[in-house]
Amino acid sequence: MSEEFTVEVPVQFRDLDPLNHVNHATYASYLETARLEYTESVLEVPLDELSFVVANLEIDYRRPLTLDDEPAVALWVSELGESSCTMSYEIRADGDVAATAETTMVHLDREANRPTPIPEAVRERIREYEGLDSPE
Amino acid sequence: MSEEFTVEVPVQFRDLDPLNHVNHATYASYLETARLEYTESVLEVPLDELSFVVANLEIDYRRPLTLDDEPAVALWVSELGESSCTMSYEIRADGDVAATAETTMVHLDREANRPTPIPEAVRERIREYEGLDSPE
Amino acid sequence: MSEEFTVEVPVQFRDLDPLNHVNHATYASYLETARLEYTESVLEVPLDELSFVVANLEIDYRRPLTLDDEPAVALWVSELGESSCTMSYEIRADGDVAATAETTMVHLDREANRPTPIPEAVRERIREYEGLDSPE
Amino acid sequence: MSEEFTVEVPVQFRDLDPLNHVNHATYASYLETARLEYTESVLEVPLDELSFVVANLEIDYRRPLTLDDEPAVALWVSELGESSCTMSYEIRADGDVAATAETTMVHLDREANRPTPIPEAVRERIREYEGLDSPE
Repeated sequence: MSEEFTVEVPVQFRDLDPLNHVNHATYASYLETARLEYTESVLEVPLDELSFVVANLEIDYRRPLTLDDEPAVALWVSELGESSCTMSYEIRADGDVAATAETTMVHLDREANRPTPIPEAVRERIREYEGLDSPE
Repeated sequence: MSEEFTVEVPVQFRDLDPLNHVNHATYASYLETARLEYTESVLEVPLDELSFVVANLEIDYRRPLTLDDEPAVALWVSELGESSCTMSYEIRADGDVAATAETTMVHLDREANRPTPIPEAVRERIREYEGLDSPE
Repeated sequence: MSEEFTVEVPVQFRDLDPLNHVNHATYASYLETARLEYTESVLEVPLDELSFVVANLEIDYRRPLTLDDEPAVALWVSELGESSCTMSYEIRADGDVAATAETTMVHLDREANRPTPIPEAVRERIREYEGLDSPE
Repeated sequence: MSEEFTVEVPVQFRDLDPLNHVNHATYASYLETARLEYTESVLEVPLDELSFVVANLEIDYRRPLTLDDEPAVALWVSELGESSCTMSYEIRADGDVAATAETTMVHLDREANRPTPIPEAVRERIREYEGLDSPE
């Protein structure tokens, strides 16, 4: 298994709400930033060829983030299906886990607008990076 | 049980991403808009006294939203605990369910920064509005 | 001259910053919402054929907007050039002018990526709506 | 005069609009990020004591920003008044100037909600950093 994949997601003033915390919806954007980075640098898929869509999102909020935090998102592929894949995330700040999350992504044939198998080359790069066993 | 609670959430240009769809993180903001409306008009709690925080968020995406859609969020309290409550949502557009969602809110004592019971008056308004049975 | 063109732009929780005011950058989004409404309903140009880009933006902030406000944007074309047009705005709330603004839009040939004359039919609709004189 | 003050403002997916460009309103957020950095590191004013408000914003858009760009904002104080100050900005990407901008900030007494002189210590730090002459 390769080293853990993490992406820094600096808090910006526009992310804050009247409680002086990063708004809870913005966490989903932080995950997105990390996910796209993974897609480009691990999967080596250019973003304009990206045909994954988010089918399900779940976030567990553990503690607020403020402008003083320097959060980073750790992420890994926790499940690899035929035409879908599940990513798991930890948003960390100052040694704390500020949130955990999971997204299920579906690989879409955009013309037909229906799920289509993830290309074998992409699946192979995921298995390699994540240290997953190849199917027999 | 009272009538269903729904809030219109007009799509704005800034909500759209390069695929011309409402970005998936923005759905969480639509839920928030509806939830605050519920808090003010059903619970009759002014927003600056609001002490619910989102502890968990889950969204199931069914179909994209575009600028032509006129989505509305239907929401109801599906579980009412001592110091937490779960809200369920449907984002609807043109007769479709575009997404379903659930948030678990924790009622917080902001000074102590720990969960505290939801005031009985607020619980009563929820039970009344939602047609939930009173505890014995 | 036709009646004044105004668009309601409801304040949403995500628009607020730690001071409990609508963040100043969000005013630009409110203008955008109003401008696109004008484009569709007065100019009758579908948004995906829209080839105006913002070349210049100026906003004068007069008073903060809060969640209790129900702002509306009034807008009109204040200058109509060959391939550009200037729009003027007032963001109003509760009888106050919360901000005034101006945007200069350039009509672009997207393929060539350079300014191109605004179609005569569109110019005519603007002149008619705004009560501007036709050129001789 | 000290070295030029610049701040990197990485483009995020959520900043993009359907044209695949950073939405024009987001430029104002990029300026804000840079300005707050300046306030903290040059003026040494903690953000929660920040009492500048934006009174005027002007942006001149020169070329679009995309996800591939790595923009940075250069900024300097171009005018220092008794209770206001004007900042000038260049948003640069790949050797281009993507936008120029100016904001006029007013120093506010928040209790009284009216302009109040910028503290002499802050004015001195600005003059020093910007190489402005002291008044006689």
